[in-house]
Amino acid sequence: MKYFRIILQYDGTAYHGWQVQPRGATIQGELEAVLGRMAGDPVRVEGAGRTDAGVHALGQVAAFHFQTRMTAGDMTRALNSQLPRDIRVVRTDEVAPEFHPRFHAVDKVYYYQVFTGEVISPFLHPHAHHHRGTLDTERMREAAGHFLGTHDFSAFCAADSEVRDKVRTVLAAELFHQGDLQVFVVQASGFLKQMVRTMVGTLIEVGRGKVEPVEVERIIDSSDRAEAGPTAPARGLFLYRVNYPEAGLEQGG
Amino acid sequence: MKYFRIILQYDGTAYHGWQVQPRGATIQGELEAVLGRMAGDPVRVEGAGRTDAGVHALGQVAAFHFQTRMTAGDMTRALNSQLPRDIRVVRTDEVAPEFHPRFHAVDKVYYYQVFTGEVISPFLHPHAHHHRGTLDTERMREAAGHFLGTHDFSAFCAADSEVRDKVRTVLAAELFHQGDLQVFVVQASGFLKQMVRTMVGTLIEVGRGKVEPVEVERIIDSSDRAEAGPTAPARGLFLYRVNYPEAGLEQGG
Repeated sequence: MKYFRIILQYDGTAYHGWQVQPRGATIQGELEAVLGRMAGDPVRVEGAGRTDAGVHALGQVAAFHFQTRMTAGDMTRALNSQLPRDIRVVRTDEVAPEFHPRFHAVDKVYYYQVFTGEVISPFLHPHAHHHRGTLDTERMREAAGHFLGTHDFSAFCAADSEVRDKVRTVLAAELFHQGDLQVFVVQASGFLKQMVRTMVGTLIEVGRGKVEPVEVERIIDSSDRAEAGPTAPARGLFLYRVNYPEAGLEQGG
Repeated sequence: MKYFRIILQYDGTAYHGWQVQPRGATIQGELEAVLGRMAGDPVRVEGAGRTDAGVHALGQVAAFHFQTRMTAGDMTRALNSQLPRDIRVVRTDEVAPEFHPRFHAVDKVYYYQVFTGEVISPFLHPHAHHHRGTLDTERMREAAGHFLGTHDFSAFCAADSEVRDKVRTVLAAELFHQGDLQVFVVQASGFLKQMVRTMVGTLIEVGRGKVEPVEVERIIDSSDRAEAGPTAPARGLFLYRVNYPEAGLEQGG
């Protein structure tokens, strides 16, 4: 039995998120269906993180056991030949059996695209939130700085989350812009449900002048979801990268 | 009665091309449906060129007459509020009644994207042709140079075209590449049915070493579609820009 780690890209537009659900196509479901057909038996795929419905990925990580003589490269090609076009395996590695894509992740990086121009290109629309009207980038950048560090992020977590410990460490929270496109990049030890989208909804309120940058501190301290801004739409969000400790997980390079 | 010129972007993936057809959604059809609802009467929209099924546009031009007190800016907003998200009006101008989007176009620019890497991103796939394997860009560039000038392009025209005069003038034919993405840009006085896609199919044969760059001259001279390469897929093709004479067509700036 081999144990493979895959790095995935997907356009989440057509999917009900990562996790297998009773109804609706999911990324995990598509992978398990293809692998199950290949193996002739059910195959369980474990992901690094559950992306919500409509969220995209440039560097999702998953792992599964598979009885095969195929190399890692063969597995990439076999999966891509059968997966839908909006899900691609960009790399496969054989890894040590101890590896766990979620438990061993040391941090993750998400990014979120907001377009503020009058007319959004049809090519950008599926992958960005269209906010008409100017946003004050300097104010948003200042506000983003207040996310840094270890906090209880209850105020930035969907009300229906079943997670108890809502303390997370934000390692980076930066805002870039090019023309009318603003990109918010956030790296953290872990993310709560809709955490990035609530951060972005709050930053937009700051950018519009409705909330002062320093108020982000108070919102965090409140632990009250109602104090933060609205949840920005899923389509602007990308799971960009999952980081693991440097050593010890790869097998046979 | 006002006469409006619009500049359009669309993702052609979901459409049966520009022109209204008995079956299947088209760009012209969507525009005429929205304008017809707004006017309460049928509105005819004339385009600068008929893009085929699955072809995209960054700068399609169209025009229509409309009885209204709306300004050009109002028209942009009204159309975008009702058009599907994969069709956007980026600009509207009021123009002189003499203007004709097709007859007055002096030239058009198309571009075509070919991706040659092993795995194509799900975000690029809808908008590029995936050709696995290396292409010799220098040979392709040399071949593209032979398209320049005034020629009978019958060999690069779909067999079912009803156009008689197949003489066109190619003003520019260039190849750019960035990493594994190759972009072919071609500017001409006019384009025949599937002309760019047949040029690209031929350039790929040159890039693969199957056809010598200089043979493009012979292929043009043959006026025989069978001598040229296969028709590259629609998804890589964009109508980039339609050029008009500088002066005399705009009204009121």
